[in-house]
Amino acid sequence: MARVAVIHFADRVAEAVERKRSQVVVGLDPVVDLLPVELRGEVVLGRDHAAAACERFCRAIIDAVAPYAVAVKPQAAFFEALGADGMRALEAVCAYARAAELLVILDAKRGDVGSTARAYAAAYVEPRGDAPALADAITVNPYLGRDALEPFLAACRRDGAGLFCLVKTSNAGGADVQDVRLSDGTLMWQHVAALVGGWGEDLVGEGGLSAVGAVVGATFPREVAEARRMLPQAVLLLPGVGAQGGDPANLAPAFTSGPASALVSASRSIIYAYRNVTDDWRGAAGGATARLAHDVWKASAW
Amino acid sequence: MARVAVIHFADRVAEAVERKRSQVVVGLDPVVDLLPVELRGEVVLGRDHAAAACERFCRAIIDAVAPYAVAVKPQAAFFEALGADGMRALEAVCAYARAAELLVILDAKRGDVGSTARAYAAAYVEPRGDAPALADAITVNPYLGRDALEPFLAACRRDGAGLFCLVKTSNAGGADVQDVRLSDGTLMWQHVAALVGGWGEDLVGEGGLSAVGAVVGATFPREVAEARRMLPQAVLLLPGVGAQGGDPANLAPAFTSGPASALVSASRSIIYAYRNVTDDWRGAAGGATARLAHDVWKASAW
Repeated sequence: MARVAVIHFADRVAEAVERKRSQVVVGLDPVVDLLPVELRGEVVLGRDHAAAACERFCRAIIDAVAPYAVAVKPQAAFFEALGADGMRALEAVCAYARAAELLVILDAKRGDVGSTARAYAAAYVEPRGDAPALADAITVNPYLGRDALEPFLAACRRDGAGLFCLVKTSNAGGADVQDVRLSDGTLMWQHVAALVGGWGEDLVGEGGLSAVGAVVGATFPREVAEARRMLPQAVLLLPGVGAQGGDPANLAPAFTSGPASALVSASRSIIYAYRNVTDDWRGAAGGATARLAHDVWKASAW
Repeated sequence: MARVAVIHFADRVAEAVERKRSQVVVGLDPVVDLLPVELRGEVVLGRDHAAAACERFCRAIIDAVAPYAVAVKPQAAFFEALGADGMRALEAVCAYARAAELLVILDAKRGDVGSTARAYAAAYVEPRGDAPALADAITVNPYLGRDALEPFLAACRRDGAGLFCLVKTSNAGGADVQDVRLSDGTLMWQHVAALVGGWGEDLVGEGGLSAVGAVVGATFPREVAEARRMLPQAVLLLPGVGAQGGDPANLAPAFTSGPASALVSASRSIIYAYRNVTDDWRGAAGGATARLAHDVWKASAW
């Protein structure tokens, strides 16, 4: 096995947060049409060139943001949209991020039954032969219940993997299911939060945080605060700042379990920060990450 | 665009069901350790060989089951577990199935917000340049609500794609979320069924069935009958016969909206039918499909 000593995922997060004084996760959502002109040139030649351009873009973004971010969060969909070449790019980008000492949180929102769940866990959060796991952690969907997440929980236990389970998503439409009121008066997302707490309670690291975290949209600060109260041991992953409108200043309550108890994720507002502003896309991404890291760190230290 | 005339997904299903007198969907879950010995030989040489072996296996299974099945359902996880080579195999297998005049239902259970959902739809159910879409239909997860499915609904409208939304899954653990009682006395899966009905109501084909179908586990026959009553226009996709224990004889109520109003999916009990029985794995898969097709057709014609 490649990981000589298995360090608990939440402890790896805490180490990175303290070392960098940052809780920022940079989402990697490569979209060909949004790439800098210098990278877009050959894309007309086909999907393999598109994947290569996206890979070059992500590598450069990783170099630019590495001093200010604790993790990158590649969004699987954008790589899958480029076919097999895109998946090869995803593998390369994840390896590059790890080499840059960034944690890798694969945003894949998987969830499936039995042997299928085992295949997803093997694909993304288990060591692959002599090679390390593709990602340190993965986002998962709770709709299929605990048994569908069991292979991922096993990877947390055995391989030091991390999970972030969807609880309250950042989009307005999530209310269709997540805000439905239950017979006991609570809402569905609160029920799921309670499940997530149970799934993670025997997976707590030395720092007191669990390998099973929760995704809560930064677009809903009241729900963020409530999820924090319900899940004192979970690392909260908070997407939705920047392009989706969430404000870091409202996220202070997320950090009452410590500086590493929440991670703030931004994607387009960082990686495409250059657009309509400057040709220096690397500098713009680095600057946007540094500013967000500063704002979040300030909010976390209340 | 490759599809000269866009035929509604449910009408394509109905045509195939009538032509083949079958409602069987064969799940393609390639697992290296379960492949016939003659295909397993080179797998030790690496992941690319493993992917090639899985592709050869799936092609042969497609040849064997094509006379008796209306669709194949590649399970994305098993291809993703083989990395980029696996994704290339998935593309090849989907193209091969289409050439064999089988519908392709990609079992990917995707669900994500905004631009990410658009990327997933582009990856799997939209035409890719001059090439057709990878799949005719895809399974999706409802937890993120309607706006997360909008790009898929647009593909139904524009490209003749189909959707199967998880409603009541075949695993026992699904109850953790799906069987939770709501304040109005219904269960969560019934709430989701009602949402699915609404999402599909303006996407009904000439045969009276919608492009938006529902996944209901054949392991829960009572819930299958109830989903049928709640969703008279939906094509129900019923996994869980065979290895998971569902019995085709109990599925008659699923077909009260017509012979093409439900599809019965089996994976391991067909593609690995040969194990411990015979070396003729192709013949065993074909035979298992023919038997299931017969049993389901009989149940549908009550």
